[in-house]
Amino acid sequence: MRQVAIIGAGMIPFGRRDEDSLLDMLAYASLNALDDAGMGKKGVDAVYVANMGAGILQHQTSVASALVDRLSLIPAAADAVENGPASGASAIKNGVLAVASGYYDYVLVAGGEKMREIVGWKATDFVATMTHPEVEYPYGVTLPGMAGMFTRLYMEKYNLTRDQLIAVAIKNQKMGALNPYAHVEMIITREGIVDDPDSVVNNPMAADPLHLYDMCPVSDGAAAVVLCSLEMAKKISKKPPVLVAGFGQATDTHTLQERDDPTDLKAVTLASNQAFEMAKLTPKDVDFAELHDAFTILEIAESEHAGFFKKGEGGKAVEKGETSLGGKFPINMSGGLKARGHPVGATGVAQVVDVVFQLRHELGKDRQVKGAKTGFTLNFGGFGNNVVAFVLRRAE
Amino acid sequence: MRQVAIIGAGMIPFGRRDEDSLLDMLAYASLNALDDAGMGKKGVDAVYVANMGAGILQHQTSVASALVDRLSLIPAAADAVENGPASGASAIKNGVLAVASGYYDYVLVAGGEKMREIVGWKATDFVATMTHPEVEYPYGVTLPGMAGMFTRLYMEKYNLTRDQLIAVAIKNQKMGALNPYAHVEMIITREGIVDDPDSVVNNPMAADPLHLYDMCPVSDGAAAVVLCSLEMAKKISKKPPVLVAGFGQATDTHTLQERDDPTDLKAVTLASNQAFEMAKLTPKDVDFAELHDAFTILEIAESEHAGFFKKGEGGKAVEKGETSLGGKFPINMSGGLKARGHPVGATGVAQVVDVVFQLRHELGKDRQVKGAKTGFTLNFGGFGNNVVAFVLRRAE
Repeated sequence: MRQVAIIGAGMIPFGRRDEDSLLDMLAYASLNALDDAGMGKKGVDAVYVANMGAGILQHQTSVASALVDRLSLIPAAADAVENGPASGASAIKNGVLAVASGYYDYVLVAGGEKMREIVGWKATDFVATMTHPEVEYPYGVTLPGMAGMFTRLYMEKYNLTRDQLIAVAIKNQKMGALNPYAHVEMIITREGIVDDPDSVVNNPMAADPLHLYDMCPVSDGAAAVVLCSLEMAKKISKKPPVLVAGFGQATDTHTLQERDDPTDLKAVTLASNQAFEMAKLTPKDVDFAELHDAFTILEIAESEHAGFFKKGEGGKAVEKGETSLGGKFPINMSGGLKARGHPVGATGVAQVVDVVFQLRHELGKDRQVKGAKTGFTLNFGGFGNNVVAFVLRRAE
Repeated sequence: MRQVAIIGAGMIPFGRRDEDSLLDMLAYASLNALDDAGMGKKGVDAVYVANMGAGILQHQTSVASALVDRLSLIPAAADAVENGPASGASAIKNGVLAVASGYYDYVLVAGGEKMREIVGWKATDFVATMTHPEVEYPYGVTLPGMAGMFTRLYMEKYNLTRDQLIAVAIKNQKMGALNPYAHVEMIITREGIVDDPDSVVNNPMAADPLHLYDMCPVSDGAAAVVLCSLEMAKKISKKPPVLVAGFGQATDTHTLQERDDPTDLKAVTLASNQAFEMAKLTPKDVDFAELHDAFTILEIAESEHAGFFKKGEGGKAVEKGETSLGGKFPINMSGGLKARGHPVGATGVAQVVDVVFQLRHELGKDRQVKGAKTGFTLNFGGFGNNVVAFVLRRAE
């Protein structure tokens, strides 16, 4: 199995992009990644597109074929990969396997979603299409609803507090305000998000005990990476290549209700363990992570289930600043899904793009994890029913 | 790169399956393939689901995660792959790369589509979502419309006749009537499909010069295969393993109008050549093929572009019986898309399943290609904008 490296990474600012089609966004992000790779005339052999909802949102299929044409990469192979909100990491994983096999030499992976065309309950309904079609969706279960119930159980079991959840939101909004690609650049303070029964604008309850600012926004956006063998990357790349040291993917019961302990995110633990095992590293060897904080609770729960903190310690770590820049294990220095936004098909790719920027030491002092050598990403599909993790290392 | 083999193949009868959900169909086909593989308690590491339209047709995403749960294959990795009507072959290709890389040992690939929920123009509209979202779809271009225009040009350039097109339909309907998995089991005769201006039931014009019986039906259905390394297959398989000797995938302009010569299906030629090159074989080494006859014209055009017949000779070959059972190069002994049906996500997988049955010499005398050793499949995405080909060999 060939070792695989990332030699190009690019994205476009997430947010509301009414003027761009899904294809426009995927093309812009891809061109940024291809430019970043500086491959010159070397051809892309295959393209993977991560997308969850073009059928529902844009009434469009065969997006990968359209992107290859748009980018003038014909006759490169092109497939779309879908794994709900973890589509991005799944597409990268398949791109990595394609290069690892030796069949393809240069692979472009682009993830994108255009979600702002739908508003209000329709956005929640779209996201809910990832729930079980027979025993969840028809009964009106939504992802925020699941997250609320999960949070309540987690608070009871691990003495997690609302203040710890709020600390995630404050940290990630602060970092997002420093990230030119982030959707929400609003800084929030503890005072600004204190519960205020007289104001619905000021962080209203959304899914008890989660409030509005515990949740990621609905965003448009796209991100892309270029993959090749590590050997080739060392020859052609002008920037430090990033090695895909390890990856893992695991599933759990599709429905939350079937889990023996609904607070146990088994797929997060398994996917992370697989990634560490492949990389021959442990969580202690990792300098920072990009986690899937679609809800504040998830950043905390994932940081524990992936092995960075003991169960019940993740919330305290956030509160103590340990997951902030300069802390012992910075999480979501991009602003995370919370502030960067969560265009579902783009997210897993954007996480990897951010880790590449960190590992190449390209971010300013406000965001750069000093001397970052090893990063970690976790992309969370469904409510933890299909999880993909990567361990990425700067290749010197 | 490890050599990869197919050790299990299964499907369910295509047709109108109102009583089954998409998930039901995928599960039944998967269980048939897993039973066929006879792997006992050996675990499946990863599942690939080929599907084009669950978002649009079933308002459902994350189908791969749901299938893994349904089959009790948790924590196996699971991704959906979409490449329009070539989703099936694309999913198999990615499964093959995953095994070839050495990362996964046992991979299940299931393709399915439930299309009969929509009827009439809505089915045509659904299929048209694979056309270009800006320069084709908004102008009302449909796949039958494209096929009609393509056929007219092909007839003019290569002196192809209506009689030759009809010969494809007669052959494939005849074979479909012998295939227990086929959707349409109606036998048609030359007299039965002669143009009859007094009867719209009797093969009416659909997209000049194509008539109703030149087109595949709208079907529900699913098919699945199980992959592992050839080395492992030889150890564990009780049936002759089928080697994935070669595969190829190529794209062409997304819009038909941009091609210098619209009758030249470059992606078919390229994908086929890649597959032959990898297999170190030529079209002359192949005993039979399953081609993508969504329209009768495509079987003829593909048989020429893949290199089995010279340009302009494919139609004559059908008329002379050369592509019938006992002929020098049998095509679509399953009945093809024309009779077996074309549940879009299932088709590419079903083609491979049929070739596996042939190569294992399991079909009765009415359908079995005698002594079949090497087979070929071609799965045609868009109107030839994303094509995937396989060369499959019986491994002794």
